[in-house]
Amino acid sequence: MNENEIHAMDTKVVTVPLGERSYEIFIGSGLLGRIGDFMPFDVAGRRIFIVSDTHVELYAQNVKRQLHEQDASFCDVLVFPAGEKTKSYESLIRLHEWMLENNVHRDSVVIAVGGGVIGDLAGFAASTIMRGIEYVQIPTTLLAQVDSSVGGKTGINTPLGKNMVGSFYQPSVVVADVDVLKTLPRREVLAGYAEIVKYGLIGNPRFFEWLEDNGQGVCDLIPEVVAYAVDVSCRTKAAIVQEDEREAGRRALLNLGHTFGHALETAAGYDGRLLHGEAVSIGMVMAFELSENLGLCSREDVSRVEDHLGAMGLMTNPSSIAPGLSTSVDEMIAIMQRDKKAKDGKMTFILAETVGRAIVRSDVPDDLVRSVLAKFIGVSVA
Amino acid sequence: MNENEIHAMDTKVVTVPLGERSYEIFIGSGLLGRIGDFMPFDVAGRRIFIVSDTHVELYAQNVKRQLHEQDASFCDVLVFPAGEKTKSYESLIRLHEWMLENNVHRDSVVIAVGGGVIGDLAGFAASTIMRGIEYVQIPTTLLAQVDSSVGGKTGINTPLGKNMVGSFYQPSVVVADVDVLKTLPRREVLAGYAEIVKYGLIGNPRFFEWLEDNGQGVCDLIPEVVAYAVDVSCRTKAAIVQEDEREAGRRALLNLGHTFGHALETAAGYDGRLLHGEAVSIGMVMAFELSENLGLCSREDVSRVEDHLGAMGLMTNPSSIAPGLSTSVDEMIAIMQRDKKAKDGKMTFILAETVGRAIVRSDVPDDLVRSVLAKFIGVSVA
Repeated sequence: MNENEIHAMDTKVVTVPLGERSYEIFIGSGLLGRIGDFMPFDVAGRRIFIVSDTHVELYAQNVKRQLHEQDASFCDVLVFPAGEKTKSYESLIRLHEWMLENNVHRDSVVIAVGGGVIGDLAGFAASTIMRGIEYVQIPTTLLAQVDSSVGGKTGINTPLGKNMVGSFYQPSVVVADVDVLKTLPRREVLAGYAEIVKYGLIGNPRFFEWLEDNGQGVCDLIPEVVAYAVDVSCRTKAAIVQEDEREAGRRALLNLGHTFGHALETAAGYDGRLLHGEAVSIGMVMAFELSENLGLCSREDVSRVEDHLGAMGLMTNPSSIAPGLSTSVDEMIAIMQRDKKAKDGKMTFILAETVGRAIVRSDVPDDLVRSVLAKFIGVSVA
Repeated sequence: MNENEIHAMDTKVVTVPLGERSYEIFIGSGLLGRIGDFMPFDVAGRRIFIVSDTHVELYAQNVKRQLHEQDASFCDVLVFPAGEKTKSYESLIRLHEWMLENNVHRDSVVIAVGGGVIGDLAGFAASTIMRGIEYVQIPTTLLAQVDSSVGGKTGINTPLGKNMVGSFYQPSVVVADVDVLKTLPRREVLAGYAEIVKYGLIGNPRFFEWLEDNGQGVCDLIPEVVAYAVDVSCRTKAAIVQEDEREAGRRALLNLGHTFGHALETAAGYDGRLLHGEAVSIGMVMAFELSENLGLCSREDVSRVEDHLGAMGLMTNPSSIAPGLSTSVDEMIAIMQRDKKAKDGKMTFILAETVGRAIVRSDVPDDLVRSVLAKFIGVSVA
């Protein structure tokens, strides 16, 4: 690619340093229109399998047109229904079949044009077709730009839980064009914003302060402001992932809000009532509440987090989920004990000592967890 | 484990040197009876998922009993029907579900007790449950001991081809007990022997000579003789895999006999008429024939290979397949062009300059391939 051109447009570049699996994330405006510049391989003569969903198919067709003009020997788009239900065995098998029917080869490339669902599905398919082929991510949601673009997690859901089947597989490159966010529903922008807040909360108090001042600009998608937030988020995540690629230790911090959040998502059944980022937003408030109950952080910290998320228009309580969630404390506990992060039923929580300092704990008494759950979800309305 | 004990029983140890993914293969007699000695982790408190098939379930139950006595927190066996058809999406999903239903955790372990089919399936399931958990191989066929125990290839078949879906995933340890081969049907011993011959043919002429003298002892399963052959085979494969873990170059040599062999297997439909090793045996003779037609090796080399394989009782021609194979030159070519090793329809062949010296070639004229196919499979009898 042409380095000068990229610098002229002030594209930010984050390197995810993972030895021979290192790759770069390009962040900026107008990147999609010259997508070929960012491909770390010759497009000519290559077979390219683009995976997308019904919401962002137009971007995928744009990518297809450009790579077709650059003489890819095969270049087509497979479009899945938008939504979490697409992360299934059925979609995986359909994707494998599509590639095999179209003579996928070991030097073929899978390109994901979509949010986290498409990225996770396409990445998993790329990692498992012919024991792994190259994979490029073009995240089209704020959540995917700041979260799934770093870390190499791929996977699908099963009836027994979210992301239970998958692999660690690094992309060859990630291209995060903030312009594509303009067609994203406001609700999805906010859901992505919750993960941005998370990076401040787990280890960067100054970034959280910056968000308190500039969060509105991020959510209003002012290009320089959102690009800065994506850049800091990716850098924060990259630094943590570099230390702990396979999630043995410190990487667990990235799960702030996720133990409660995943359980809420599972209880909601991925039917669109609750986006992942919304679940994380509620989950972070619950994690701070649990932290306060354990005597870790202050009541002011809990309020500060709840206030900022609420001010931005994010859910901070399961009671905001509509139609209302029908679950119970027992059901939530059961779901959390099945979580990948649980060990022999012992749940792991990411807790906060204050805003900007998170820790991992696996010794939280069940009754404290139950009392936080009772406060937030109340008695079952099932 | 107790090093003295192992040395006292003259167990051979092959290290597969792959950096942080390095592991050891223990080869010897009586290993299954003290399986706990070889586990590179504490069994106590761990959840252990043993995968096996109907032919060798008794060995799996033996392993289960021992690990249960060592206080595994969960230890059970899931038994699949013996045979290639078990390498399917259905089995993979069944295995995932079984693990999830039984609270699989990130430090749980999958143990494969079986041949290549069980190893490939269990390894793939281990690599994809919770993005990868530990995996132990206890190969119970000669083929699995000399072939799938080194290299980390896992996978399943799809209707569009063999091993098209899978991953590279290294086991934590491999325990190859030659005693278990005593219950293996003679036909399967011979099929495994074909892969042993392959290691001689691709790079070790002295080993091929040793096999010409001692092949009968290997196939009669004389413990020291078969252990020596397994040891040399694993060392040869380990040296090649070390250089080329993801099969970019030299590792392709291990595919001698496999381009033709896989095509024969696909045409036979994995119905039991043709074992993988039998297909490789025929495929190696066809590869030598093609080599001779290209002016690479001599007619004597072709005869020497064919004679040794034939003398051991292995198939050297598709005409020995019963009931007879109904295929055609065109069908075989079409299958080979879909092979993972093919690129845009260009087939890759491993050819021989002589016994013990193989090379990779992707420029073999189609008409020469067709003429070898015509000689070996004749006109379609479909």
